[in-house]
Amino acid sequence: MAVGLLLVGEELLDGRIADRNGPELGRRCRAAGVRLLEIRTVADDPARVAEAVRELGVRAQLVVVSGGLGPTLDDTTREGLAMALGVELERREPLVERLRTRYGLRGIALTEANLRQADVPRGSTTLENRTGTAEGFLCRSGSLQVVALPGVPSEFREMVERHVLPLLVGGRLRHYRRATLLGLRESELAGLVEAVELPATIRVTYCARFPVVELEWSGPDEGELDAHWERMASELSPWSIPGACATPAEAVITRGREEGWTVATAESCTGGLISSRLTDVAGSSAVFLQGWVTYSNAAKTSQLGVPEPMLDRCGAVSADVALAMARGARQRSGADMALAVSGIAGPDGGSPDKPVGTVHLAAVDGSGSVQVFAVFARQSRPAFKRLVANLGELMLLRLRDGAPDTLDRLSGVREVTVAPSDGVR
Amino acid sequence: MAVGLLLVGEELLDGRIADRNGPELGRRCRAAGVRLLEIRTVADDPARVAEAVRELGVRAQLVVVSGGLGPTLDDTTREGLAMALGVELERREPLVERLRTRYGLRGIALTEANLRQADVPRGSTTLENRTGTAEGFLCRSGSLQVVALPGVPSEFREMVERHVLPLLVGGRLRHYRRATLLGLRESELAGLVEAVELPATIRVTYCARFPVVELEWSGPDEGELDAHWERMASELSPWSIPGACATPAEAVITRGREEGWTVATAESCTGGLISSRLTDVAGSSAVFLQGWVTYSNAAKTSQLGVPEPMLDRCGAVSADVALAMARGARQRSGADMALAVSGIAGPDGGSPDKPVGTVHLAAVDGSGSVQVFAVFARQSRPAFKRLVANLGELMLLRLRDGAPDTLDRLSGVREVTVAPSDGVR
Repeated sequence: MAVGLLLVGEELLDGRIADRNGPELGRRCRAAGVRLLEIRTVADDPARVAEAVRELGVRAQLVVVSGGLGPTLDDTTREGLAMALGVELERREPLVERLRTRYGLRGIALTEANLRQADVPRGSTTLENRTGTAEGFLCRSGSLQVVALPGVPSEFREMVERHVLPLLVGGRLRHYRRATLLGLRESELAGLVEAVELPATIRVTYCARFPVVELEWSGPDEGELDAHWERMASELSPWSIPGACATPAEAVITRGREEGWTVATAESCTGGLISSRLTDVAGSSAVFLQGWVTYSNAAKTSQLGVPEPMLDRCGAVSADVALAMARGARQRSGADMALAVSGIAGPDGGSPDKPVGTVHLAAVDGSGSVQVFAVFARQSRPAFKRLVANLGELMLLRLRDGAPDTLDRLSGVREVTVAPSDGVR
Repeated sequence: MAVGLLLVGEELLDGRIADRNGPELGRRCRAAGVRLLEIRTVADDPARVAEAVRELGVRAQLVVVSGGLGPTLDDTTREGLAMALGVELERREPLVERLRTRYGLRGIALTEANLRQADVPRGSTTLENRTGTAEGFLCRSGSLQVVALPGVPSEFREMVERHVLPLLVGGRLRHYRRATLLGLRESELAGLVEAVELPATIRVTYCARFPVVELEWSGPDEGELDAHWERMASELSPWSIPGACATPAEAVITRGREEGWTVATAESCTGGLISSRLTDVAGSSAVFLQGWVTYSNAAKTSQLGVPEPMLDRCGAVSADVALAMARGARQRSGADMALAVSGIAGPDGGSPDKPVGTVHLAAVDGSGSVQVFAVFARQSRPAFKRLVANLGELMLLRLRDGAPDTLDRLSGVREVTVAPSDGVR
């Protein structure tokens, strides 16, 4: 079975929001062994919706439509689908009742615009929405099935699970092996991978999200896949993050839980992003004890014990201060390891010897430390923060491994210092 | 002029990554008064790329293609474009030289796969890539222009700016008026907006990202637009976040700078997300002084002075503890205001009386406090954290306004307490 996805909404075309439903449905199709063939985004225009559904329906047996089912006048997906299928809209009394109840509970009067949410293409089956006002519906045209769902990501996700997964049938399951690699460039990885002769049934894909590159092999025969994958995996092990972890933050938490160590953070330029990424991982409270966001110099001194003369002498963005922050955080939190960062996120605050993009990081444990000095090319504050967070999380893993030498392969990293000795732990 | 965007990559279809180039080009087109008509995503398959370019070219005068120009064998956009235009690929010597230099500098040998990056459809103009190895190119077929750019967002963005913007011509500029509203549901907003009679030239769009709803009016005549908008804007003012701010975090920093106050945070379940969001805003260091991420009870006591007996009696997720955290953060940072949150992000850790999704927040300033107790429907940890962060930032603004009563309109919010009196400040 092939699936097509149609996203409806002017806000997706003019850059006001980024789509999250495509990746959601893509992951679901992949897990079901079914192919998401195409994603198409069009404006809230019934004629364009109708045309896109017809075109997607030529190749796909199931078309999922996201968005344009809301209560406002720019929501016209219902009209578009009725047009595509050549049927009328009809008002469903149970939907009217449901709207009355939902709005009534909130003390809001139903308008005619709201009532349009009770209209569906003739012959459709309605699909319950447990959290929002916009019900979905399923309609058929010959062998083509069309499912319309609200675009709100939480509602879309929940309704895909209940209403779309049962429709995903006939998938020939493929098997997947994946490695997430840190500190290796995509072209270096390609060099290693393409040196291996593979049967035509095994498909190789790469996905680079600096400083992470994902490599995936997939094939119909698990035994064959493993026979080839094993050697590749061991060759890539110096750069792999462990287990099935998708991000370095997840790897830190997973390893901390497995190995029984704890971590604390002291952040200046990343402003809490690292602690936030670590605590995005379920179960992080067993590993992450505490974080400080010490944006001001006064906070670095009062909260982490960074000596004032050191701040005066070296400046907040310096190797000495990052190390002192990490040591202060480790000591005050009682954690086994601590990570500290201090840098210049921009757009202001740079100087000739410390330009925007300069950052010092330090990771410490009971017997050693790794320090990294990096200068990243100028970019937005959030992008700079993400880079630094990835690098910092990687440092925690490398300090744990005693293998900090792979850090200097990361683009933008100028210097790696290891103390007290090369055998960090 | 109408523009089409084609995204190429299996990783965008199977949910491994979310697209960021669509919103980028969308914003650029909008700013240029040009319409991005459609976004289409297909796999790395030259035949599908060729077909999509041909179909998009029926309506668009410019088709931008993103991705599939990399050094790995799954990158086949070049072949697809040559097929669409009915021309051969040709190897460009200057591109070969450039690759040799770039790879040489890094001590990496050029493989035949890498050399394919020097191939372009015959007749193309190459477009310089300043940061990566994949050059772009521009080719023409009759009145259709096709621009191929690498998919890496930082490279795409930079190359759109230099190579695509000059091609965006003939746009009829529209004028835009936008309000970002907090604490108002989309359907309530629609009720207010649709009560207004508007000329057909003014287009109204909504964009809901709970708890924020964006309303936008656009039209060709600025005077006409303003004449109608002024009344609407004043009617919406109780829910508007100030100025041109797109997020509540930006509103906090902007108002703090304008009004000269400072803020500190004490986070448990949000794990640093609030401080990270505040410090995403350029210039935040003038407003945001310091944050604590006190995940453990011990940290709440040692770092923020929350009394141990209170933690034993009420539990960490309680009104008393949130207030004590906020007071501790304010006092220890010296900030004018402080915000504290403690909640249960899940998936574990809930109980019958404190289910997953329960959160207590407290915002304090020198003369009062606002406390909110909320229970959000079960969702992912990152989504829960985002909701709580939005709510917390809104509390800071409402405490400042002395108008905390609008907080209880937010879905999921059970209770708002204001102390010492209704006149908070």
